[in-house]
Amino acid sequence: MSVRYELERRCSQTGARAGKIHTPHGTFDTPIFMPVGTQATVKTMSPDELKEMGAGIILSNTYHLFLRPGHELIAQAGGLHKFMNWDRGILTDSGGFQVFSLGDLRKITEEGVAFRSHIDGSKQFLSPEKATEVQMALGADIAMAFDECVPYPAEYSYAQDSTDRTTRWAKRCKDVHTRKDQALFGIVQGGMYKELRKKSAAELIELNFPGYALGGLSVGEPKQLMYEIMDYSVPLLPADKPRYLMGVGTPDCLVEGVMYGIDMFDCVFPTRVARNGTAMTSYGRLVVKNAEFAKDFRAIDETCNCYTCRNFTRAYIRHLLKTDEILGLRLMTIHNLHFLIDFMRKMRQSIIEDRFVEFRRDFQNQYEIH
Amino acid sequence: MSVRYELERRCSQTGARAGKIHTPHGTFDTPIFMPVGTQATVKTMSPDELKEMGAGIILSNTYHLFLRPGHELIAQAGGLHKFMNWDRGILTDSGGFQVFSLGDLRKITEEGVAFRSHIDGSKQFLSPEKATEVQMALGADIAMAFDECVPYPAEYSYAQDSTDRTTRWAKRCKDVHTRKDQALFGIVQGGMYKELRKKSAAELIELNFPGYALGGLSVGEPKQLMYEIMDYSVPLLPADKPRYLMGVGTPDCLVEGVMYGIDMFDCVFPTRVARNGTAMTSYGRLVVKNAEFAKDFRAIDETCNCYTCRNFTRAYIRHLLKTDEILGLRLMTIHNLHFLIDFMRKMRQSIIEDRFVEFRRDFQNQYEIH
Repeated sequence: MSVRYELERRCSQTGARAGKIHTPHGTFDTPIFMPVGTQATVKTMSPDELKEMGAGIILSNTYHLFLRPGHELIAQAGGLHKFMNWDRGILTDSGGFQVFSLGDLRKITEEGVAFRSHIDGSKQFLSPEKATEVQMALGADIAMAFDECVPYPAEYSYAQDSTDRTTRWAKRCKDVHTRKDQALFGIVQGGMYKELRKKSAAELIELNFPGYALGGLSVGEPKQLMYEIMDYSVPLLPADKPRYLMGVGTPDCLVEGVMYGIDMFDCVFPTRVARNGTAMTSYGRLVVKNAEFAKDFRAIDETCNCYTCRNFTRAYIRHLLKTDEILGLRLMTIHNLHFLIDFMRKMRQSIIEDRFVEFRRDFQNQYEIH
Repeated sequence: MSVRYELERRCSQTGARAGKIHTPHGTFDTPIFMPVGTQATVKTMSPDELKEMGAGIILSNTYHLFLRPGHELIAQAGGLHKFMNWDRGILTDSGGFQVFSLGDLRKITEEGVAFRSHIDGSKQFLSPEKATEVQMALGADIAMAFDECVPYPAEYSYAQDSTDRTTRWAKRCKDVHTRKDQALFGIVQGGMYKELRKKSAAELIELNFPGYALGGLSVGEPKQLMYEIMDYSVPLLPADKPRYLMGVGTPDCLVEGVMYGIDMFDCVFPTRVARNGTAMTSYGRLVVKNAEFAKDFRAIDETCNCYTCRNFTRAYIRHLLKTDEILGLRLMTIHNLHFLIDFMRKMRQSIIEDRFVEFRRDFQNQYEIH
């Protein structure tokens, strides 16, 4: 098995667990946050900067790379790791989420999804087989089965049909996935219906994937509902394999996800809000662009030791953001990713020392949720 | 004197000279190319990256900083060095070039230039005194006298009046310049008229500036004419002080400038074309964006040892540029600045070893001028 989960410590009071995931491109500690590098680059960052902040694995998007520059080109370059000069872990999503997001531009059949490129309007087609072929060409350490992310809200019958199809598609992905140095994860769907989640998990586990994701969460539902589904779904998954919660990356959701036993997370949130001028800190968000920081010569977070906070002031970063200077986007991105990776590191340490419940309580007392 | 020129070696056949310039923020080797950091940042670069490529001094623009974030704010931050976290040399221009470029938005009188901000249309005024005050607040190692860059072409009478006014303004700048840790350079104007250049140089030398620039060149005139004016003007300047050719930064012009005895150069060229997808190499320009490089897995320049060329392929950089990813702009900028700084280093070495004429001949044989 190309990807292996190693348990280090379980929280004595919650589902939280600390471990390691071994991949063909090194081992990373879990729970972990994966920065998103949609187009074979984590926006504004160099690989060296990602390493400096301790990123162990990043996510890249199959849909985007399939359209540009094309998976054949990346295969010719020697695979995605070599193409983008990143020698640590990579996970590629299946492209499912993106093609379903195209709305009127796509048409779903049992065979797959016909869609028009958002770039040039050209006709394209992704199926379980094609998405798997593309991901094998990209050569990430972890590939994802081609699924439909059930939207929220969804009628029961829609969620049922969609989830059943996702399971059939997962089997087709597995049937054509032959790359030994890549793990193919299954994705549990089922919308907000527990019985569908249960059926989805059971059928996917039957297929024996080396890891499982929870998909279709954080898609607009109330947070409490997401937590309820997580609370119900995580225990359905095998304890000896990685568990991945897709598309979640705000500190409060990360803490809850970890509590329920999730190992891996990804989200564009920290990088996107960075570029909009919002910094993440241990007490909440700081809109660095705001006028109040024009003459504030302190670091974004005086307790932070990222490159940005060690070297630059709020006033300077605000100036860069107001004048549309790229260094501003870079410094904000460095800070937010560093913050989130460090936050996960501290949370992991609290599990190791069996004080996760304390960590969570301190966080909730200190952090202003937006 | 806060800035001091130290001669190391003279070319035995041309005016070229190798030396050092000592400033309150360290010493740099000359001849040197100064990257342009218009808004208190060299576009896309971090200070660490500039250091890694060996930049010893950068240029920043008084006009832009005066409008945003304002010189008072930068003074409050502890000056421009501290504001942008750059502890090597900085030169600020006077703002003259930018306000004169505003065309209909500005009005010149003997007192100074009234203009409207290009950002918000607000009424502003720069005079020799004000430009000097602003530059003292910014606190660069080298400030420039407030001048008018005579446009090309210009009638003799216009050039004469303008140049005489620039000289009167230079005196006014000097009268109010009191900052001991900052050198104020004079700017020789005179358009393409040798006798005006001679008069300008003589009158400025009379004022005893610690360094002199040639302004009003590379403003649209044929290169041969620029070279002729340089050939004529450089010998008018004192040999024991730095000589700075403003706004020049293509390799062929740098070689000629050095040949005539120039020590310092600046230009947005390398950074601007980088962001447009054009790389500078020792044999000419490479338009990395072109389709022919889509599957080219070589470095931009296989003989280059910059971060970009050590780690990334033309195919990857092209992909980043085509998908508007900021890392593409960064990698191109790193390469072009590294190329130009390294080019100056090699040229300097050839002067030290008294083989500059050979260096120039080899360059001319190899480099495709555009």
